[in-house]
Amino acid sequence: MSNTFGKFLRVTTFGESHSKAVGAVLDGVPPLMPLSEGDIQVQLDRRRPGQSAFSSPRKEQDTISILSGVENGTTLGTPLALLAYNKDQRPKDYSSTTDIPRPSHADYTYKKKYGITASSGGGRASARETLARVAAGAVAEKILSHFYSVEIVAWVNSIGTITAPDIDMNSITRTMVDAHPTRCPEPATSKEMERVLLAAKEKSDSLGGVVNCVVRNVPAGWGEPVFDKLGALLGHAMLSIPATKGFEIGSGFQGTKMPGSKHNDQFVLKGSELGTLTNRSGGIQGGISNGEPIHFRVAFKATPTIAHPQKTVDYQGNEVILQTKGRHDPCVVYRAVPVVESMAALVLADLALAQRMVTGQ
Amino acid sequence: MSNTFGKFLRVTTFGESHSKAVGAVLDGVPPLMPLSEGDIQVQLDRRRPGQSAFSSPRKEQDTISILSGVENGTTLGTPLALLAYNKDQRPKDYSSTTDIPRPSHADYTYKKKYGITASSGGGRASARETLARVAAGAVAEKILSHFYSVEIVAWVNSIGTITAPDIDMNSITRTMVDAHPTRCPEPATSKEMERVLLAAKEKSDSLGGVVNCVVRNVPAGWGEPVFDKLGALLGHAMLSIPATKGFEIGSGFQGTKMPGSKHNDQFVLKGSELGTLTNRSGGIQGGISNGEPIHFRVAFKATPTIAHPQKTVDYQGNEVILQTKGRHDPCVVYRAVPVVESMAALVLADLALAQRMVTGQ
Amino acid sequence: MSNTFGKFLRVTTFGESHSKAVGAVLDGVPPLMPLSEGDIQVQLDRRRPGQSAFSSPRKEQDTISILSGVENGTTLGTPLALLAYNKDQRPKDYSSTTDIPRPSHADYTYKKKYGITASSGGGRASARETLARVAAGAVAEKILSHFYSVEIVAWVNSIGTITAPDIDMNSITRTMVDAHPTRCPEPATSKEMERVLLAAKEKSDSLGGVVNCVVRNVPAGWGEPVFDKLGALLGHAMLSIPATKGFEIGSGFQGTKMPGSKHNDQFVLKGSELGTLTNRSGGIQGGISNGEPIHFRVAFKATPTIAHPQKTVDYQGNEVILQTKGRHDPCVVYRAVPVVESMAALVLADLALAQRMVTGQ
Amino acid sequence: MSNTFGKFLRVTTFGESHSKAVGAVLDGVPPLMPLSEGDIQVQLDRRRPGQSAFSSPRKEQDTISILSGVENGTTLGTPLALLAYNKDQRPKDYSSTTDIPRPSHADYTYKKKYGITASSGGGRASARETLARVAAGAVAEKILSHFYSVEIVAWVNSIGTITAPDIDMNSITRTMVDAHPTRCPEPATSKEMERVLLAAKEKSDSLGGVVNCVVRNVPAGWGEPVFDKLGALLGHAMLSIPATKGFEIGSGFQGTKMPGSKHNDQFVLKGSELGTLTNRSGGIQGGISNGEPIHFRVAFKATPTIAHPQKTVDYQGNEVILQTKGRHDPCVVYRAVPVVESMAALVLADLALAQRMVTGQ
Repeated sequence: MSNTFGKFLRVTTFGESHSKAVGAVLDGVPPLMPLSEGDIQVQLDRRRPGQSAFSSPRKEQDTISILSGVENGTTLGTPLALLAYNKDQRPKDYSSTTDIPRPSHADYTYKKKYGITASSGGGRASARETLARVAAGAVAEKILSHFYSVEIVAWVNSIGTITAPDIDMNSITRTMVDAHPTRCPEPATSKEMERVLLAAKEKSDSLGGVVNCVVRNVPAGWGEPVFDKLGALLGHAMLSIPATKGFEIGSGFQGTKMPGSKHNDQFVLKGSELGTLTNRSGGIQGGISNGEPIHFRVAFKATPTIAHPQKTVDYQGNEVILQTKGRHDPCVVYRAVPVVESMAALVLADLALAQRMVTGQ
Repeated sequence: MSNTFGKFLRVTTFGESHSKAVGAVLDGVPPLMPLSEGDIQVQLDRRRPGQSAFSSPRKEQDTISILSGVENGTTLGTPLALLAYNKDQRPKDYSSTTDIPRPSHADYTYKKKYGITASSGGGRASARETLARVAAGAVAEKILSHFYSVEIVAWVNSIGTITAPDIDMNSITRTMVDAHPTRCPEPATSKEMERVLLAAKEKSDSLGGVVNCVVRNVPAGWGEPVFDKLGALLGHAMLSIPATKGFEIGSGFQGTKMPGSKHNDQFVLKGSELGTLTNRSGGIQGGISNGEPIHFRVAFKATPTIAHPQKTVDYQGNEVILQTKGRHDPCVVYRAVPVVESMAALVLADLALAQRMVTGQ
Repeated sequence: MSNTFGKFLRVTTFGESHSKAVGAVLDGVPPLMPLSEGDIQVQLDRRRPGQSAFSSPRKEQDTISILSGVENGTTLGTPLALLAYNKDQRPKDYSSTTDIPRPSHADYTYKKKYGITASSGGGRASARETLARVAAGAVAEKILSHFYSVEIVAWVNSIGTITAPDIDMNSITRTMVDAHPTRCPEPATSKEMERVLLAAKEKSDSLGGVVNCVVRNVPAGWGEPVFDKLGALLGHAMLSIPATKGFEIGSGFQGTKMPGSKHNDQFVLKGSELGTLTNRSGGIQGGISNGEPIHFRVAFKATPTIAHPQKTVDYQGNEVILQTKGRHDPCVVYRAVPVVESMAALVLADLALAQRMVTGQ
Repeated sequence: MSNTFGKFLRVTTFGESHSKAVGAVLDGVPPLMPLSEGDIQVQLDRRRPGQSAFSSPRKEQDTISILSGVENGTTLGTPLALLAYNKDQRPKDYSSTTDIPRPSHADYTYKKKYGITASSGGGRASARETLARVAAGAVAEKILSHFYSVEIVAWVNSIGTITAPDIDMNSITRTMVDAHPTRCPEPATSKEMERVLLAAKEKSDSLGGVVNCVVRNVPAGWGEPVFDKLGALLGHAMLSIPATKGFEIGSGFQGTKMPGSKHNDQFVLKGSELGTLTNRSGGIQGGISNGEPIHFRVAFKATPTIAHPQKTVDYQGNEVILQTKGRHDPCVVYRAVPVVESMAALVLADLALAQRMVTGQ
């Protein structure tokens, strides 16, 4: 069941890092919506590795095909199959190294779960799996923008110990984010991040960071009480992204230090609707959107793949020094930006459909 | 769909704060397991309000009945219905105050979602809803302890700005936690917390805090890749608890500041199985348990219900000063401890059943 | 998972024949709909045993309580808990007979599945389980009539070898059906059925039969392509009722004998909408309603509970003659009428909500 | 949701008759099972059109690719993507005829549901959709045979008014079935069926029929009580196949005419297990398998696609004579045989996994 996400807009993904292809089937897309492969490709291109000086200079092209569900540029209401072939699909002979589970990777746990793991690369645990999320998420974004004018923007807020000052959530755009190779829209912070990234790369080490995200124009009333609160679904979605270790909505962990009299968001009249003066709730009250911008933060650990030699043991328990070859990206946080946006889109489009059932005729 | 949680062990809850009853149906409980109402009552009693000096001196008794699924103290494999009647079930005439949505409560968002809200109390958004979670969670805990010897212990780690020093996750017990009215097992910190709680109560204000939780003896292999990673499901579960604003697993947000060479958990041989020397992964790698203790933290905002006068507007947008009557608890974090344990139990028992499908014949 | 039915309007039932209670939780009921316990009780009363000369003169009263989800006669959009207590809830000491699995009952298969069975009565396999279906189905019917003016009428079409002539599906009403103790609305056939029922009762034997059902005013467009075709969901629903052995939609098995040129339903203009001249499709084409009446038939075997002595073996394989005591109904087909209507209502209300997602704003 | 079937072994299908491809994602396949594309191709070849004298002489080749989930001939426990490209994927210009909904086809109902239909062919309602069912079903069959030695055999029992005599369900094999172009294993009946098929073809007409199926070696204990009874799931599965109008299990509609004393299946000792002397239950009691062969029947209407001129109306309600061109198969019942087997396999493999959760360690 683990490979399906969503209850009403349902995405099912497939594909290992070295299988023939990776992809997704997206069921529940409303009919009569304009959609082309270009709508999807733009986000896939933002996710693609090897786009900056501190990244490995790979030249992968992930070209998405829509195999079904769209005809003459219009959705039919039937499931969309989205497919990207893997370039090098022959599992390599890693027999010499597959006896050593990589520290803080999924090698050991997959072996314990299934009794077998993909013979090379990370299999389903590979970051390559996120390609399918982004493809499906781009369609979810189209649903949100086409029917509801919802906007989603994520950016890098910190890398290692370098943290950006507050970003204005009402005006931030993807163009502003993409103007910097770190995807941190604050120029000075971005420069400093580039410096530590290059330093980490030189030391064959890696860095983590935090991605912030804002969702604007969500109408009041989306989200379900009790188990599928909007914040709970967003948390589920974000914490399902590889390498995540934490999630905060609105005031988050810092907010726990404020007394109720300071933390509560005062209601005020905004045009013809109620709004709030502050937004410590992060746009969500009782699990349901209140019309204010939804904003949250996602923690990513440093990627565990490092060229640095590591003391560890093999599957038999013998002590070994593991040193992996090849050039690795020192950080994946900027590539996670479209993944965060995509998972947010999948959650919100699902809840948009859910709300149609409550209010529909 | 929002009122059901879990895919294999499935709990469905019902009940408003002032309906006739609250309760849960739990489907998927394995047959031939010993179970009595006492197994459940013990956790319900820990959740009950009004148990400390700084709490309101209420005397509610929440008595749970098992209506089905158990015969002669043994489960039948059929669904368990768990029921607790509400004492005062007549919705009171709150007509004078229901025109003002309480700040940072769910009044406004329920009204926008459904066009109607329960006429008194928080309806489904009330903390009373968590009674059903704890009842079902107690049964999930029994599955985990009976079949797998899993142990779950949660405690209060901070209230407001008062934070406990590191607690030893291998030895902490519920007895140690319950020895203090704050449920913070560190005596000096607990005393300091009591002081700030009484101060907040005097000022008709409220405080938030952080609950930590550890799960011991989970075998390697539980958790699903991709969307239902163990950390993602725990995050979903915790963020569905009222008043939560954040979730961290293992090293969490702090961990994002460490380079990969420091963050990775080195494998070592522990008895006949591999283990890790450190546990920044929080017992989970690639979304699957690795046999180490699972540990996580949950952020709770200060309860929005305060007697303090609040500037706000009514549904029509007219400015008003809201002052609610009655005595309110200044903090719910210690009462959240069994709720956190229960939601963790529901997630883990669900994944235990999921893993039976992978390895069972 | 087996105890939940429906994807959008979801009913979860619980209760054994001798547990404390039987009931259901119904999630997904739209808000702002008028609903009272009386709306439900009327169908429960039609389901109640012991209402005719050829039935056992039992005097059970099944009184339903709505525990949640409704306030001041209006639904809140939150889950409804529906509960009926069992009168005699102490499992009796059947130890002398529980070593013999009753032929064509579920005793043997439950034991093989769970390793345990309820110590008396049929447990979840008892016809008493259908009480919860009828309670939830009555709410589903209210959704269908309140929002969509849909009408559902079922009746007994045959008992044993006695079969009614064609009934006019456009005009048949529940009043016409209930005018006869057999629930066969054709007077002469009903009389003949009464005769064979009394004869079966005298011989301590039992009879089966066929229930027909029509659903009127379903708009075109309900039902899902591929796996959840309207006919497939109706078939699933009906074949989940105890003692069912077959299901036909429209022309059914007889229709397989007609060539396509005779079987196809010619389109004609009916008012402003297209309709069909004949209705061999049973109101469904390609799994989706076409606006014509939906009609189907359900086969019920003779109840396996007979006082007649039966040759069989005990669990150890020893040959025995089984003779059960007590007075049993010779037939359950007329009591199945509201159960068939209820399951049809649950399917159609679920699909009504599904269609809101397709066309909703 | 309609495009996913199964709860534990879950197949999601996609593809229109003229989209780029049709296919399926199958999630829940246990790891460490041998599997190759050849295992799937054999059933796809049995489903392929144009294989007999009375069929249209088409030469389509449906070649399946496994894109993921299998490595070196062994399943990984991850989802399988199964893909077959459509040969002629450009939707043709049917603009002249798409204004007339074909009688007893899904054209009209899709239009009412979605406001749009695929511009040529049947879209998702096309028989081509069953290719994905058969591909996924072949994998389900492999699970059943590899882990449980279950055997499934379906055959044509009647075409139009020509019906075969009783076939021995214990000995029938696919080889015996495939020895005849009609897939009716009784030689004389098959010859007679060929005669009426050729006659129908000459008259540009079509015929329906009944497919019988037996499943052998299912252990006692599979199937869920209440809503997901084994017979209910089989009924759901079969009635989701295009052109089906009815489903019977065991004694079916005929069985309703027998009194309980004759219909009940007497238990007897068979080796070390209980069995039944007769099998009117069809291998299922109380919704759970009893170890006897499971047998059922599925009614297929005559295919609505006929070259015969038909009186009907266009979407505007104008009377027209519809005459479709091209050569059509006069019957699809023999091609439905592997589809019936595949859907049965998907149901049973799903329940096999479900039972692992009940009895697993």
